[in-house]
Amino acid sequence: MSTATHYPTTPELAAEVADQLNYNTDGLIPAIAQQNTADGKGGEILMMAWMNREAVVETLTNARVCYYSRSRQKLWRKGESSGQEQSLIDFRWDCDQDTVVMLVEQKGVACHTGRHNCFFNAVRDGKVQIIADVEISPDDLYG
Amino acid sequence: MSTATHYPTTPELAAEVADQLNYNTDGLIPAIAQQNTADGKGGEILMMAWMNREAVVETLTNARVCYYSRSRQKLWRKGESSGQEQSLIDFRWDCDQDTVVMLVEQKGVACHTGRHNCFFNAVRDGKVQIIADVEISPDDLYG
Repeated sequence: MSTATHYPTTPELAAEVADQLNYNTDGLIPAIAQQNTADGKGGEILMMAWMNREAVVETLTNARVCYYSRSRQKLWRKGESSGQEQSLIDFRWDCDQDTVVMLVEQKGVACHTGRHNCFFNAVRDGKVQIIADVEISPDDLYG
Repeated sequence: MSTATHYPTTPELAAEVADQLNYNTDGLIPAIAQQNTADGKGGEILMMAWMNREAVVETLTNARVCYYSRSRQKLWRKGESSGQEQSLIDFRWDCDQDTVVMLVEQKGVACHTGRHNCFFNAVRDGKVQIIADVEISPDDLYG
């Protein structure tokens, strides 16, 4: 199923979606960013971060991913400092309406360490190892 | 990179991994289950649930996914009621050590609604729609 033309939405539809979601006691919902693929199933999981209602509405109406930064306590327009933006292709939520999956086109790398995705720790050969290389120096991302 | 032989781990290594993770104030960490693929990047995102430290250790040492049910407040061995088990292929965690991605082989369907994955709500043609069919009746899953 082609999903490329369903986003951005109108502000009214974005509000309808945002109202359907269940936020936690901090007003946040986890949002998983996954690389879009031609078959619509998605590929590499890039990162997970959090959204508040305002970030959901902005993401849907701009078709550019905006999270809520828990540490900075404000909207976090992905790529605003690093240039590593995420274009929204699809926005799906689950049976309990308390988790979001977004299919995205990632510009550059998703992780602040300069790796393509954030999930680079795993067990290999009987010990904990880093399984992905740094593609862009953090100094170049944020320098 | 082949990942099939790295799990299950020893109890000692499972404890080492569990100690590296950052749990929230409820002692939980979000865990995303993704269908394993031959290229190691993973495909369809099946579900997201939560784990406590005990669930992490059990999952790693059994290579079968065990969550922690927030509603029932106890370990939730995925498939124990429905038969829809998840075999663990890889267990990865992120830069902040506060989110887990698991590559799994899903038996049957992941969602309690009988759909293959939980993320079946999305915008299509200007309105909110259900984008996936029920594959197994919930009555058959839990009847």
